[in-house]
Amino acid sequence: MAANYSLDELAERLGGQVVGDGSIRVDDVATLDQAGAEQLSFLTNAKYRAAVEGTRAAAILVGPGTELPGRTLLVASEPYLALARLLELFHPPPARRPGVSPDARVAASAVLGADVVIGPFAVVEDDVRLGDRATVGAGCVIARDCELGEDTELRPGVVLYPSTRIGSRCLIHSGVVLGADGFGFATVDGEHHKVPQTGSVAVEDEVEIGANSTVDRGALGQTRIGRCSKIDNLVMIAHGVTLGDGSLLAAQSGIAGSTRVGKRAVFAGQSGAAGHLEIADGTVVAAKSAVLQDQEQGAFVAGIPAIDHRTWKRAQAISRRLPELWSELRETKARLDRLERMVANEDAGEDAE
Amino acid sequence: MAANYSLDELAERLGGQVVGDGSIRVDDVATLDQAGAEQLSFLTNAKYRAAVEGTRAAAILVGPGTELPGRTLLVASEPYLALARLLELFHPPPARRPGVSPDARVAASAVLGADVVIGPFAVVEDDVRLGDRATVGAGCVIARDCELGEDTELRPGVVLYPSTRIGSRCLIHSGVVLGADGFGFATVDGEHHKVPQTGSVAVEDEVEIGANSTVDRGALGQTRIGRCSKIDNLVMIAHGVTLGDGSLLAAQSGIAGSTRVGKRAVFAGQSGAAGHLEIADGTVVAAKSAVLQDQEQGAFVAGIPAIDHRTWKRAQAISRRLPELWSELRETKARLDRLERMVANEDAGEDAE
Amino acid sequence: MAANYSLDELAERLGGQVVGDGSIRVDDVATLDQAGAEQLSFLTNAKYRAAVEGTRAAAILVGPGTELPGRTLLVASEPYLALARLLELFHPPPARRPGVSPDARVAASAVLGADVVIGPFAVVEDDVRLGDRATVGAGCVIARDCELGEDTELRPGVVLYPSTRIGSRCLIHSGVVLGADGFGFATVDGEHHKVPQTGSVAVEDEVEIGANSTVDRGALGQTRIGRCSKIDNLVMIAHGVTLGDGSLLAAQSGIAGSTRVGKRAVFAGQSGAAGHLEIADGTVVAAKSAVLQDQEQGAFVAGIPAIDHRTWKRAQAISRRLPELWSELRETKARLDRLERMVANEDAGEDAE
Repeated sequence: MAANYSLDELAERLGGQVVGDGSIRVDDVATLDQAGAEQLSFLTNAKYRAAVEGTRAAAILVGPGTELPGRTLLVASEPYLALARLLELFHPPPARRPGVSPDARVAASAVLGADVVIGPFAVVEDDVRLGDRATVGAGCVIARDCELGEDTELRPGVVLYPSTRIGSRCLIHSGVVLGADGFGFATVDGEHHKVPQTGSVAVEDEVEIGANSTVDRGALGQTRIGRCSKIDNLVMIAHGVTLGDGSLLAAQSGIAGSTRVGKRAVFAGQSGAAGHLEIADGTVVAAKSAVLQDQEQGAFVAGIPAIDHRTWKRAQAISRRLPELWSELRETKARLDRLERMVANEDAGEDAE
Repeated sequence: MAANYSLDELAERLGGQVVGDGSIRVDDVATLDQAGAEQLSFLTNAKYRAAVEGTRAAAILVGPGTELPGRTLLVASEPYLALARLLELFHPPPARRPGVSPDARVAASAVLGADVVIGPFAVVEDDVRLGDRATVGAGCVIARDCELGEDTELRPGVVLYPSTRIGSRCLIHSGVVLGADGFGFATVDGEHHKVPQTGSVAVEDEVEIGANSTVDRGALGQTRIGRCSKIDNLVMIAHGVTLGDGSLLAAQSGIAGSTRVGKRAVFAGQSGAAGHLEIADGTVVAAKSAVLQDQEQGAFVAGIPAIDHRTWKRAQAISRRLPELWSELRETKARLDRLERMVANEDAGEDAE
Repeated sequence: MAANYSLDELAERLGGQVVGDGSIRVDDVATLDQAGAEQLSFLTNAKYRAAVEGTRAAAILVGPGTELPGRTLLVASEPYLALARLLELFHPPPARRPGVSPDARVAASAVLGADVVIGPFAVVEDDVRLGDRATVGAGCVIARDCELGEDTELRPGVVLYPSTRIGSRCLIHSGVVLGADGFGFATVDGEHHKVPQTGSVAVEDEVEIGANSTVDRGALGQTRIGRCSKIDNLVMIAHGVTLGDGSLLAAQSGIAGSTRVGKRAVFAGQSGAAGHLEIADGTVVAAKSAVLQDQEQGAFVAGIPAIDHRTWKRAQAISRRLPELWSELRETKARLDRLERMVANEDAGEDAE
């Protein structure tokens, strides 16, 4: 049976407050639509406010200042973080069962920390080092000389090319490929000659990388993913990129070769950056946009090429009215034609007088 | 030797008609360019009409009303569907060979239907249920508590995270990852805290998902792919998305978190939708476009942000003539300058008179 | 210990010249920032010229005509190609260790050339042919009737669907899926009926395909990747596409079904082409652009839809000044209003005289 907690207990854990009856007990968290009478729901996005009306939830988690008359509230200063904590509480991950599958192939020279998990059909090659409590999912391939830090987990089907380094407490999802060759060719007389990609990939602590994303190894030197960066699915990080700490890259975004992205940058879905750029700390790139030049600290850009977000927004609004603008110009010219003729006639008239 | 059929036989199977000699026998279907004298070709896209001239095909499958003088025709009311039926006829899939590979690892608690296939190096974890005639390709990983319906096939190298449900008669291509964690982080003071993704993925009957696409599990609740939806390669479906029945998502498109897409929506290649939107039934999104707001039933939109397709098209046409528009405006202003001076001079002249 | 070479020796190997002391010995190549005092660096992108100042490199590889006073130079006519050769010299790939892993499953009917490598948990099905020195990485799945040429390498986790042909000296990175079904459905009365994809994929010699890219099999006939084409990560090549020799497709680009791309075409990152197009030899498509119509030889296009690159650039420059243009038009009309009134008043005045 699921554990249940009173709102008072939850408020104490979260450092929050109850508005209403704190003795109410809940056994899970659910969306406003889906919550049952024994569940806590949450309102962290104003867009869903209308759903409060019909919810059956026993209480609602909100941020400070949100008023929902007639509802029992659990108020937290950071409600989305509180939601994360509640989900951890109600949905603890299944217990790890340390051990190396007899169906894994682990090189004798590999160094395994305490309590590692290696799943069936995983391959761990020579000189690999796995930190304590590292997890290697089924079917992963870890080439020679790779390193995983403590508590880092590779979900099933991850491939690490040689000499990839991953820090501690990272989570790498299925289908991710780290360390494949960068896209580098010397083209002479129409023939493309491969430039050997002799560098590597370094992923720092607490990074998460989404399913089927790829990070290529440097041509020389490292491709580096900074601490606590979070990368969504199907993202491409090219050779020699440096991603600052705490950056967020949404799905299907891409960073081309040798570009340096600062700390806490945000790339929204399907956006991208060209190669060899300097993108300063805190740059925010809107969805579908393409950064084609260096960006200064705190820039918020949109468009192809990406420009200041407000300028882009104003230009876009007018852009869809271009047919109107065009016809107004036509009309203005026609009026000008008439007026010129009138003035010319007057002159002629005056001359004729 | 390949089976062959007379055009009359084919017409009967398809409910079509032969124009010309129905006793002609054909042994395969091929494009106009590639068809040999013993083959049937087809004209289902007017773009290829010029290729009719040079084809060696014995006959041509067409829709009603298409006239190709001098050619033997097989006329079907839905020629593209007829083509599908003919390809099934001439290229039956290889016979299934039911059985569990001795190299697969199948948990004792897994429940296997009749005549399932499980390939080598596949992993089937605890409490998985496989429907009758389900196929699990080589190297697939099916985590605990997943379910596959009857006649559903996973091609080699698919990964299902825990509790993923797939209906009947689905086809999931290689490299697909279903149920990976959604991209959810609570950012407080520049630190990103993971929001546990406790939901799951539900794929309904007759869905096809292309190679290396990803569908993330809900943060809470399900990410749902509606019946008979067809998803191309490298597509991203984020956490909490609902995709209506019969939707079509072309390659490299993406739907951000919690967006609800209606029935029979179409997303063309490399298009996308932002999160938390309501996109009504039948919405069509042009290639490379980005839907950033709710869409009403039957909308056909294009652009970034996506607007009505016709408006976008007109605006685009003028957009490329912006330099011209700009210089016309400059010229108009210069004429106005001159005219203003003339009128001012006249006034001055009159005043001086 | 790493091999080291004098600049004179390197110049002789590369057909280049030393400017300065040719007896200086170097043991590796590194970027200007990273090079130590025993290393050779390079300047092949003018953007990094400022970094020459602070480099500790023993010498710098440059192209003809580059002057870096006070620096020892290794001058090569094609410096980027020279860099490729030097990286090969200083970083020879690890020796291959031919052999079939006892953990691979290789069909009895497969034909293996001399000195092939097949990694653990790889699956090689019936009638597959592997050329001499072909390499099949761990966990790859090669379905029936596929063929790999001499010296071709599949990195771990590649999936080949039945009857895929790959030429010689190709390199296919992890997570690539070749030959999955194309996205073809006949939609009748809102129901999507699968069109069997009965064709195949043919990859010619010296092709490289980046991690997690996908090439779909033809509906009928082949999807063909021309000789010496280079494809980056997460690229989508749809069914029936023909890619000419020596084409370059950067990351996350995509080519829709049946489009024919000429020789030495270039698709920059996140660009795409619609289906059923003819894109002539040497076409260059800018990043994020979408080709929606046929292209003539040597076209350089940008935008959505893609138009001539210069036109697009000019239009984009004005596009961001649209608010300005709009207000200038408003102002022009206001001036015209005033002037019309003045002229009308004059006329009225004259009439009244």
